[in-house]
Amino acid sequence: MQKYFIPKESLMNKVIDNSDAFHIIKVMRFRIGDEILVSDNEKTYLSKITALENNKVSFEIVHEETGTNELPVFVTIFQGYPKGDKMEDIIKHSTELGASAFYGVMMKRSIVKIDEKKKDSKIERFNKICKEASEQSLRFRMSEFKDIIPLKNIDFEKYDKKIVCYEEFAKESELSNFKSIVSSLKPNDKVAVLIGPEGGIDDSEIEYLKKLGFTLCGLGPRILRTETASMYVLSTISYEMELK
Amino acid sequence: MQKYFIPKESLMNKVIDNSDAFHIIKVMRFRIGDEILVSDNEKTYLSKITALENNKVSFEIVHEETGTNELPVFVTIFQGYPKGDKMEDIIKHSTELGASAFYGVMMKRSIVKIDEKKKDSKIERFNKICKEASEQSLRFRMSEFKDIIPLKNIDFEKYDKKIVCYEEFAKESELSNFKSIVSSLKPNDKVAVLIGPEGGIDDSEIEYLKKLGFTLCGLGPRILRTETASMYVLSTISYEMELK
Repeated sequence: MQKYFIPKESLMNKVIDNSDAFHIIKVMRFRIGDEILVSDNEKTYLSKITALENNKVSFEIVHEETGTNELPVFVTIFQGYPKGDKMEDIIKHSTELGASAFYGVMMKRSIVKIDEKKKDSKIERFNKICKEASEQSLRFRMSEFKDIIPLKNIDFEKYDKKIVCYEEFAKESELSNFKSIVSSLKPNDKVAVLIGPEGGIDDSEIEYLKKLGFTLCGLGPRILRTETASMYVLSTISYEMELK
Repeated sequence: MQKYFIPKESLMNKVIDNSDAFHIIKVMRFRIGDEILVSDNEKTYLSKITALENNKVSFEIVHEETGTNELPVFVTIFQGYPKGDKMEDIIKHSTELGASAFYGVMMKRSIVKIDEKKKDSKIERFNKICKEASEQSLRFRMSEFKDIIPLKNIDFEKYDKKIVCYEEFAKESELSNFKSIVSSLKPNDKVAVLIGPEGGIDDSEIEYLKKLGFTLCGLGPRILRTETASMYVLSTISYEMELK
């Protein structure tokens, strides 16, 4: 079943007339009578297509879908800004695995510099990936890419648990820290997960994060690439909280 | 620290003269006196570079590195052959996460057809990725890409546990199956993990796998892409067995 997150007005009017209409008509080649899931990011409805015109899809609601498949905790990934198009892969896979929100974090060892003029279009592009990945994985709610921001400007106050993934010299205690935090999570906890860029996290940043109440966590005895760390964290939270 | 898996003769002669020499001299720009890790895939040695010539690196051994960071179980990923270059990403990330071996599996819904003439060069390419990812993640042993092979030709006899990742209609029992298998793993178990291609697994294949003793496992309530499934499985095995 294909899902579309659509604007509230679209849901009110039962008409999709944005780029999703193109996807429905030209990519998926749906026909009148075919069923799709539509959501205003609050409720999801099984719907039936009633008309297809030039870039305009009308539908009627069959019934509201109940139940959720959201991770029981709200995980925000604070990703040290990586090279190339790794951020896109991180957003894609972490959204499938249940992340709520993302920040791109400019850190001492981030190699990429983000041109202020290009920042908004990057954020827009990343939110498009959030939407597509949320649709593909049939998420109940969309993940959101919030901002690209220097580490020092982030307010971590509201998070219940704060984890920094610290690969170097994963010591015995750091290998136990992660499991003890994950196994202590309670539904609706807000979890901040900070992951360094390719070059890792500078000692001064580690000290700063410790002062803010972050716990240093090793993710097993092998060295993970920056783009793999969030997947490890989210998979294990799902395993701990969602599987019986 | 940079690691290189080198042929046994290289280790005997204390000379690296294959493409790794290029990497050492031109990419990493190491100098005489710099330290590297070398391994013949059995033992790992901290070594010091003693000479650098045209595409030839001499070294001396400082000491043997003891201890291992291998996952306590042998996980073989049987990956339904995916589209594009997804197989490369799967090998890369799953190697970091501790997979022992890979097969590309031709299944009913595999869209890509592998030309027999190109098969060997593909396998060679995939093993190069195994080597690089094993080096990057400082694996004690290299992962290995074994073969590209139709499902019916695989002998699953030797595996202690057999998991098939089954996303569709993740039922309550399938969400409990995975956790009960992972939490029952014992060191040195051989684990077969079968993951369908993008289009999923055909009903007849599911029946066939059940007869061979595979357990159907759901990996949480969201739909994962084929390239994300192995990361979920490996991360959670690490979490269960490696973190205290």
